[in-house]
Amino acid sequence: MAEKTVKVAVIGFGTVGSGVAELLLEDVDYIEARTGIKFELARIVDIDTERERHIVLSDGLLTDDLNSVLEDNSIDIAVELVGGTTVARDIQLKLLAAGKNVVTANKALLAEHGNELYAAAHKADKCIAFEASCAGGIPIISAIRTGLAANKIKAIYGIVNGTCNYILSNMTEKNMPFSDALEQAQEKGYAEADPTLDINGSDSAHKLAILASIAFGCEITLKDILIEGIESIDISDIRYGREMGYTLKLLAIGEKLDDGRIFLRVRPCFISSDSTLARVGGPFNAVSIFGHAVGQTMFYGRGAGMMPTASAVVADIIEVAMGNSIKLFKHVKLETRDEANDPIGNIDDLVSRFYIRLKVLDKPGGFAKICTILADKDISISGVLQHEEHNENNVVPAVVITHPTEQKKINSAIEDLGRLDIVRDKPVCLSIVDIPEDSDE
Amino acid sequence: MAEKTVKVAVIGFGTVGSGVAELLLEDVDYIEARTGIKFELARIVDIDTERERHIVLSDGLLTDDLNSVLEDNSIDIAVELVGGTTVARDIQLKLLAAGKNVVTANKALLAEHGNELYAAAHKADKCIAFEASCAGGIPIISAIRTGLAANKIKAIYGIVNGTCNYILSNMTEKNMPFSDALEQAQEKGYAEADPTLDINGSDSAHKLAILASIAFGCEITLKDILIEGIESIDISDIRYGREMGYTLKLLAIGEKLDDGRIFLRVRPCFISSDSTLARVGGPFNAVSIFGHAVGQTMFYGRGAGMMPTASAVVADIIEVAMGNSIKLFKHVKLETRDEANDPIGNIDDLVSRFYIRLKVLDKPGGFAKICTILADKDISISGVLQHEEHNENNVVPAVVITHPTEQKKINSAIEDLGRLDIVRDKPVCLSIVDIPEDSDE
Repeated sequence: MAEKTVKVAVIGFGTVGSGVAELLLEDVDYIEARTGIKFELARIVDIDTERERHIVLSDGLLTDDLNSVLEDNSIDIAVELVGGTTVARDIQLKLLAAGKNVVTANKALLAEHGNELYAAAHKADKCIAFEASCAGGIPIISAIRTGLAANKIKAIYGIVNGTCNYILSNMTEKNMPFSDALEQAQEKGYAEADPTLDINGSDSAHKLAILASIAFGCEITLKDILIEGIESIDISDIRYGREMGYTLKLLAIGEKLDDGRIFLRVRPCFISSDSTLARVGGPFNAVSIFGHAVGQTMFYGRGAGMMPTASAVVADIIEVAMGNSIKLFKHVKLETRDEANDPIGNIDDLVSRFYIRLKVLDKPGGFAKICTILADKDISISGVLQHEEHNENNVVPAVVITHPTEQKKINSAIEDLGRLDIVRDKPVCLSIVDIPEDSDE
Repeated sequence: MAEKTVKVAVIGFGTVGSGVAELLLEDVDYIEARTGIKFELARIVDIDTERERHIVLSDGLLTDDLNSVLEDNSIDIAVELVGGTTVARDIQLKLLAAGKNVVTANKALLAEHGNELYAAAHKADKCIAFEASCAGGIPIISAIRTGLAANKIKAIYGIVNGTCNYILSNMTEKNMPFSDALEQAQEKGYAEADPTLDINGSDSAHKLAILASIAFGCEITLKDILIEGIESIDISDIRYGREMGYTLKLLAIGEKLDDGRIFLRVRPCFISSDSTLARVGGPFNAVSIFGHAVGQTMFYGRGAGMMPTASAVVADIIEVAMGNSIKLFKHVKLETRDEANDPIGNIDDLVSRFYIRLKVLDKPGGFAKICTILADKDISISGVLQHEEHNENNVVPAVVITHPTEQKKINSAIEDLGRLDIVRDKPVCLSIVDIPEDSDE
């Protein structure tokens, strides 16, 4: 017999909601055997109560009335799967005020209004559990908060958007231009009809804000993060990068330097083709976490989709019901930031290597001009790639790899290079990230 | 101020013990900030109290008297890091009887005496936490029990012995024979002076017994596991495999088939060189877990070493102190097995593809004889590799890849092949494992 019964409501009966309902209905005995808790799916709320879903519900379970959850004191846990940052925010605040623990997959909401919601939860002595908000089925929040709890986290390097990874993998492996790769991602269901939030990096930034705030114990919002997407990636840069041993990935990076500064960015980055993350293909997600004791770890799996995300939601429901989440949640007291002593580093000061591609008029002295500009900015060149290519305009591509330098120096150099009379089009500049693999061969 | 103080004792002050002491002493404030718990390292017990360790302890902390822990009711958690299956067993039983929760990294002890110890813990209303027993710093036990709690686990494929992975990686990448690779592993500190338990597969089998019993909720001991090591792996097989797109790894595999049968084995296996696990190099560990909801996941990191293992031990100490471990532990009620209805499948019935290498006398009709034996056993050939090679004895290597077939059929065929007059030496037979990647490109 179950040690206790816990009633759960699901708000938002879309794809993930259906998956959660399926697990709660079909695996109730299995979960009880593993946890001692019998879960009862007590109510599903959605504005659309007519549409057919893949799962059959008993009569009266589905309603469009949120109050039926708010006013039912026997419901302990409510899962918010409405999405977005407006209605969902109101719903979460109402649920917390009504004494429900909240489980959610809503990364945008937490990234934008996390502090308000966490405060409301603390006030109500309830918790918000959000494993499903980052990297779908990969238990990465739990890994940071419990499995790696003894570690000071030094860095996070994440491939946390399956749409972008699928597109970049196809561009890389099949030599496909961006537009074709995006189209294929849409056909396969890996990209939405409007893929803007995925491909412009916003979705990854939402996840980075959540992961970094937990890992570094510091209030982090979207405006702390440099965000660049993959929309303007040219296939030729992927090819040149590969020639030099690099693979292009959209990375969400949070690094805490020894001096305490935290640098946060989402952008397409070249990483060594031999690195573990470079080998994460297709729609998969992976997050590498570096801890001071554990060294390098990586967590890999499906970052989206009905059942993988439902897997994370139900794991959270179990942890909330067991009383574990509330204890952890009490310690999500993110350091409020102090203007005088803000740990978030200015991205201008970030040090990285860079890949620069220029379209250059092929005439004597051209390369000397480029080198002079870089030298003037105190940037040293570590490699150059220029193939013998000729076109009607006598314009050739030249690729320069720099030694580590500050973002602000490279920005200034790129501006000057773009103004050179021998340079056609806007120069392309991509960061090269040296992930500290401690593989000590 | 700390919400509570928890006293911890460490029994066994070797490498991992020193790492645990370091984390508990140096990071006490950091851990308190994240958990609300102030840990006090109250006692360290070791038979050797004189040897210099890398960490300086305050006077009186180190003792050789276990009773000083057993009799101190203020100590709530004791970490057993003595190792082995005799003294350590006594110590754990005494600690439990004295009302301590036990944290351990001792995989051999749990694999051999887990049921006895779990029963003693249940009786004492205490728990045994053993994250550090499998795959070092990778939080894999926690992942199976909490992060993937909503999943029925279908399969585990693990690289869980860093020594073997380092040796096989060097054999593969540097074309190094086994003996040289082992020597290098010893020089680097990745292999013990006596590496037997690592290279003969026992260590991996201990970990598989623990992982599989948790994943499948079923009592599993070493005798349920087919165990083969890497001692007799010939570099030529690694090379032929690579030619055909396979990489050799020592895998610990637990699979639960749809009919409920569980197959368990540790042996060198060929896997596709494109698979995620094939790319795990050097001393790293990785465990792929397949869940019915989440699909494929993989957890990667350091499987051994002072600080990675200490990271897992301290994570467990925190979970025990927060009261989470005891709740989970109560549900480690492994199904006692019923002789009439044993879920453990007989390895003879295991279906796999196989790689067979024979040294064959190069004369007309030779290959026909081989094919006839395979055909007689109902084994179909999916590929053949025979290079034009000649040596003084007119003996050539022939490699045959089979379609999926039962282990007992292949065993019988290998026996018959070995008896053929044209076959020199013992035939080599290695399993080819098709890891179900759901990468749906």
